[in-house]
Amino acid sequence: MIKANDPSIQSWLDVPENSDFPIQNIPFGVFKSENVSARVGTRIGDHVIDLNALFILGYLDNLPFANTDFNTDSLNKIMKKGKKATTDLRNRISKLFNKENNDLSSNAHHVQQVIFPVERIEMCMPVQVGDYTDFYSSRDHATNVGTMFRDPDNALLPNWLWIPVGYHGRASSIIPSGTAIRRPKGQQKPSENEAPVFGPCKLLDFELEMAFVTFDGKPLGDSISTKEAKDYIFGMCIMNDWSARDIQKWEYVPLGPFLAKSFASSVSPWIVTMDALEPFSIEGPKQEPEVLPYLKYEGNHHYDINLEVGIIPEKSEETVVCKSNYKHMYWNMAQQLAHHSVNGCNIRCGDMMASGTISGPSPESFGSMLEISWKGTKPVKLKDGSERKFIQDTDTVVMRGHCKKDGVRIGFGEVSTKVLPAN
Amino acid sequence: MIKANDPSIQSWLDVPENSDFPIQNIPFGVFKSENVSARVGTRIGDHVIDLNALFILGYLDNLPFANTDFNTDSLNKIMKKGKKATTDLRNRISKLFNKENNDLSSNAHHVQQVIFPVERIEMCMPVQVGDYTDFYSSRDHATNVGTMFRDPDNALLPNWLWIPVGYHGRASSIIPSGTAIRRPKGQQKPSENEAPVFGPCKLLDFELEMAFVTFDGKPLGDSISTKEAKDYIFGMCIMNDWSARDIQKWEYVPLGPFLAKSFASSVSPWIVTMDALEPFSIEGPKQEPEVLPYLKYEGNHHYDINLEVGIIPEKSEETVVCKSNYKHMYWNMAQQLAHHSVNGCNIRCGDMMASGTISGPSPESFGSMLEISWKGTKPVKLKDGSERKFIQDTDTVVMRGHCKKDGVRIGFGEVSTKVLPAN
Repeated sequence: MIKANDPSIQSWLDVPENSDFPIQNIPFGVFKSENVSARVGTRIGDHVIDLNALFILGYLDNLPFANTDFNTDSLNKIMKKGKKATTDLRNRISKLFNKENNDLSSNAHHVQQVIFPVERIEMCMPVQVGDYTDFYSSRDHATNVGTMFRDPDNALLPNWLWIPVGYHGRASSIIPSGTAIRRPKGQQKPSENEAPVFGPCKLLDFELEMAFVTFDGKPLGDSISTKEAKDYIFGMCIMNDWSARDIQKWEYVPLGPFLAKSFASSVSPWIVTMDALEPFSIEGPKQEPEVLPYLKYEGNHHYDINLEVGIIPEKSEETVVCKSNYKHMYWNMAQQLAHHSVNGCNIRCGDMMASGTISGPSPESFGSMLEISWKGTKPVKLKDGSERKFIQDTDTVVMRGHCKKDGVRIGFGEVSTKVLPAN
Repeated sequence: MIKANDPSIQSWLDVPENSDFPIQNIPFGVFKSENVSARVGTRIGDHVIDLNALFILGYLDNLPFANTDFNTDSLNKIMKKGKKATTDLRNRISKLFNKENNDLSSNAHHVQQVIFPVERIEMCMPVQVGDYTDFYSSRDHATNVGTMFRDPDNALLPNWLWIPVGYHGRASSIIPSGTAIRRPKGQQKPSENEAPVFGPCKLLDFELEMAFVTFDGKPLGDSISTKEAKDYIFGMCIMNDWSARDIQKWEYVPLGPFLAKSFASSVSPWIVTMDALEPFSIEGPKQEPEVLPYLKYEGNHHYDINLEVGIIPEKSEETVVCKSNYKHMYWNMAQQLAHHSVNGCNIRCGDMMASGTISGPSPESFGSMLEISWKGTKPVKLKDGSERKFIQDTDTVVMRGHCKKDGVRIGFGEVSTKVLPAN
């Protein structure tokens, strides 16, 4: 069998240099076009491949899928089939588009039915998210926030090194790249002694995060161990977890962030599978104090994924304001999933769990404007000469991510979101 | 047209005295039996009425519903049709079962197809919950918690009288009455200077709450005003928002409750419509300081609903440990919904929003064991002679609620949940 991750394999479809989507990637997403309703697809180079058409034409025979699994507006039905099925699907696609296989490539009529140029389609929200959880797993980020708002000498809260701290987020407002957002309105407290006021958020921020989506977990009352975790994770995307810092500051004690986050979280539209990311797994940091037994793990559960954030002022060019890496996480996905379910909480197909802001140790790797501008005290100069402490109306924020090793680059594409003025 | 709330109307179905389900109620739920797959039903007295059968037999003609709206395992499809449609549906059912109407009652064969005795069916989860939000809207509860854990002289946090404080909860683990739960496991910190330990929760608690479910709201970026709120709320149920106090204490700073709540929230299976509850609406408390304009409201948005909680030790009788009332809420549903959406957060059909623990001013009306036993310092004596500070394994916790006025009683039935030992 062909190994879908083999660096030597090439596709009969052309793949531009430095593309995020070589044949070794084979991500899954949902696309539509003027003439075609939302359906499941994959991407090689700048070609989007219609998996519903592939299925109808018989190229996905003898896999445990039905037509309705692809002719649908989310990946949930294929994820519902579980890890083995989706791995087999990715391997089949790899085989079909391999240069050495002409089953499909020799049939020009079929090729025409199956392939869309990327500029002719629109990407949709890839997953119907059941529950969305946001973790807080970058030590540098938690330290920065604690230093700014609490005590630089005790920046980390007492539970942080023991618990992969997380909270429930809002699933309804997760949107795909390309969907503009409105600046949220809400209560802010201008100063200690003034009454709160209502109006558009003044401190709008991005948070550079990555998120994973799950297969069906176990029933209520059962738990997923760190050892089992990989069997329950389908893949990952980049997330911009939009944050309204002034709303957050006034509302979040004691029950956590609410309206400061629930107005939007933007995701990159292609879910890159854990199968594709496996070659980029690496060792994590030493965890001190030693974690409790249910959080211990074996093997590599961290991933070396280069990340960057750019700001594009309207009608201007992009300035990259952050270069970070997913490897900066303290708590990994296996630990997050084990913690999340250790109380018996049931995980369902299509749940989404985000990392929390991914900051590294140096200022250029900070994953939010809060940290980059250090609470607004250090404005960032953009290429057009303007400055930013936070995000302004009509700015577009773009996040990108990719892995690179042994000549293979596996990427996520981008999540790009324009901010419109408040209503 | 017959008014479904008219106290004088009676059904040709017998209704026991003090039933929660007279013909003036007509709640909606999902039931199944050995021979019948999950479907939408309503209830009069101890008779469960199969709305799918009613539809097929033509009794729901000329309403905007399809067979698939009733032959399904949640109320989401009928809620998707919006307020007018569900109001018309309730009115039609009221008319059909009115003593003065024999369209259905005269056809014994049809009656047999449509009606199930309540003891022959099993109630299911009524709603497929998209997002679950838990508010914290009882002033007495917030004051009690603040007094116990912070400062009796400043028990309410500074934002509490300005903001209907709430947080995102876990939707996947909302379960219907009758589903047993397992005592959750998690991290607890025995004392300030000891390291955290892992094990079964020692301080398992109930929270007496009510929850409402929504129709489709507005698109992302728009808001629902307090004036519009009633058009977006379908109905209510009772909720037991299970809480693990020791897990909560160690995990909740700074991002709020997570594993302390996500192991289970139990709901009563019948959604009582806002149409049925309207006669029991009352004025709310004076809000001081004056709330911000987007939280002001006109009309009555509070409801007089008697609530009680009982503990049933295994093989023993029930002791009622709390008698409260939904009228004790400081923030009402219109304010909660307006606040939730004021930042542009989109509300979807099937979202569930809970009140937070409903405590009244006097100790017998406290809605959690935390408050009833005052952090375990005042154990409660049960009828069997045993004592409770918190909930023990094999205990069953029952919550009930009903309104009463002008000789009409509209009730919710109960939510009953047995606690099994930790795995």
